[in-house]
Amino acid sequence: MSVADQNRQWVLADRPVGREVRESDFELVSRPIPALREGELLTRTLYLSVAPVMRRYMLQGGAGEKPLQLGETMRGRGVGVVVASRNPRFAPGDFVQGKLGWQEHSVSDGSPYYMMYRIAQRIAPLSTGIGVLGVTGFTSYLGLMDIAQLRPGDRVLVSGAAGGVGSSVAQIAKHHGAGRVVGIAGGPEKCRLLVERLGYDAAIDHRREDLHARLGELLPEGLDVFFDNVGGATLDTALLHLRTDARIALCGRISEYLGDDEQPYALRHYQQLHKKYAMMRSFFIYRMEADFPRAEQAMSEMIRSGALTHTEDVLEGLERMPEALIRLYTGANRGKQIVRVDPLAETYRDHNPWRGT
Amino acid sequence: MSVADQNRQWVLADRPVGREVRESDFELVSRPIPALREGELLTRTLYLSVAPVMRRYMLQGGAGEKPLQLGETMRGRGVGVVVASRNPRFAPGDFVQGKLGWQEHSVSDGSPYYMMYRIAQRIAPLSTGIGVLGVTGFTSYLGLMDIAQLRPGDRVLVSGAAGGVGSSVAQIAKHHGAGRVVGIAGGPEKCRLLVERLGYDAAIDHRREDLHARLGELLPEGLDVFFDNVGGATLDTALLHLRTDARIALCGRISEYLGDDEQPYALRHYQQLHKKYAMMRSFFIYRMEADFPRAEQAMSEMIRSGALTHTEDVLEGLERMPEALIRLYTGANRGKQIVRVDPLAETYRDHNPWRGT
Repeated sequence: MSVADQNRQWVLADRPVGREVRESDFELVSRPIPALREGELLTRTLYLSVAPVMRRYMLQGGAGEKPLQLGETMRGRGVGVVVASRNPRFAPGDFVQGKLGWQEHSVSDGSPYYMMYRIAQRIAPLSTGIGVLGVTGFTSYLGLMDIAQLRPGDRVLVSGAAGGVGSSVAQIAKHHGAGRVVGIAGGPEKCRLLVERLGYDAAIDHRREDLHARLGELLPEGLDVFFDNVGGATLDTALLHLRTDARIALCGRISEYLGDDEQPYALRHYQQLHKKYAMMRSFFIYRMEADFPRAEQAMSEMIRSGALTHTEDVLEGLERMPEALIRLYTGANRGKQIVRVDPLAETYRDHNPWRGT
Repeated sequence: MSVADQNRQWVLADRPVGREVRESDFELVSRPIPALREGELLTRTLYLSVAPVMRRYMLQGGAGEKPLQLGETMRGRGVGVVVASRNPRFAPGDFVQGKLGWQEHSVSDGSPYYMMYRIAQRIAPLSTGIGVLGVTGFTSYLGLMDIAQLRPGDRVLVSGAAGGVGSSVAQIAKHHGAGRVVGIAGGPEKCRLLVERLGYDAAIDHRREDLHARLGELLPEGLDVFFDNVGGATLDTALLHLRTDARIALCGRISEYLGDDEQPYALRHYQQLHKKYAMMRSFFIYRMEADFPRAEQAMSEMIRSGALTHTEDVLEGLERMPEALIRLYTGANRGKQIVRVDPLAETYRDHNPWRGT
């Protein structure tokens, strides 16, 4: 199969400092695909992912993130298929997940920066490589099992429970013997989703309900594990409900991504960690790559047995990338927000035009 | 050797709510020693320990601690020798450490409440059983090695560094390959002690120096491990100096023991845990009893090789228990504050009048 010589890309056109991300912050351009040098590989993008942290890339010096230059291709993870390779570790036809960027084709050198991970599982759709069987799902699995060290019988609380990471946590927890699992989400629709489809025993709507009071009702004996995707006041309230030996996985702090960190939240109840001999631990999933195959295998088996369902919110076409990102910040997405860039994506597994070329 | 039939004890005479602990809060009384029932053992007290947490026992409902009744014997750990036993796990002549209380003789039933641990080491003085080779020292060792998971090359910060726990941490850290170890203490005398005798590379006097500025000077690349005995603002400032993958052992919060928890300190910089993928973990040494023999053996060997020196601040006679406790809160102690209750204590090891009776 021939390789296109032009590559459509979304580049950063403006910065969202002090306001919401807008479609006009991005521009769709077309640029030629360069010839591969030794060590490089060319992938065709099948799916792209969006994540709350992306607004930080767009800022001028967002805390902790290397800012994008104006005109630079937006960063982002995706699933692709290798169409040409001068890198011995990747062969044409291989399916990979990694930092492909918001573009139809991607050239990378296979170095750690690109986080190229060869998709090993053959059970679930390739799209899961940026969701439940990708870094998002590995975050759910490793955050729960390795960081929060789930034990049978644990009472579990999850914030951001309807999001990409949160939507797998209850099912993984239940599969490994957890007791009651309670999710926090915004709005009645998401709360119904948690209980009806995502394995949660109960849901708390943080927009309408008092978190402290509801936790007292739903987890009267307290919680052993808190998988926190939100931070700030949510974390602070949860600290009041820790049981002895509780473990908190600090996964995200979406409550703070929209601000500029000028007035960080002060944690009033951190002394509860002392009183409950508890642990609070943050982690960076990209530094746990050695554990990805274990997570992928375990979760594939859960999918096979029906223990793990997942919800993807799919938009069609590269054109919709800015819309997909903005949906995260407005809370419009239901499950993992992804964009299908190549409409034939899933068909390549059975009819792989690049395999063996 | 005959056993006395009267037992002198310090009992709680008044409560220190809203003010400092005073000598008049205690009363020295004499009561008969009861006959042993099946399962009980009688120990003669050799040494007694004092600890900051004791003020909480004295309060009416101090947070997290069961309050003492007025007239009840003060709680506290000590080293004793078994003088009579109807418990098959303990024989006369055994040296033990455990909850003996502020008294010359103690009757216990060997249940977990009393935390009776048979002293196994034969290298160091028995007094170390309430210090460097007792729960205090096990706290230093297990807090650093198991909770903070010290790794070779780690840059280590210790608060309350001149106290019972802190005074061993630098030596244990250096022995296990730590890089620079910095201690925080109050006053120039304690700071000199840290550097000249306790293995610290540098000391920060929190009474005279700006902690944030000094940390920037002494640990310009930040810290990998923070062994925190203080909490509050000290912890908050240390959070600003974390390196990636930093680990914080929350051991004590002496900064808060004097208050009544009405206005707990709010942690402003907890987001640093997120940014540095760091861990913060509290622990309760009395729940790690299975690890005590490992700590005792490792630290005994360090004492034998000269890698671990320790500083005891010994007062003579049961009469001085209230004074010993008050010295903790005024910061007068140098090293582990202990009281020698029996002037012949150390001689019993070589001439054990109870062994084999």
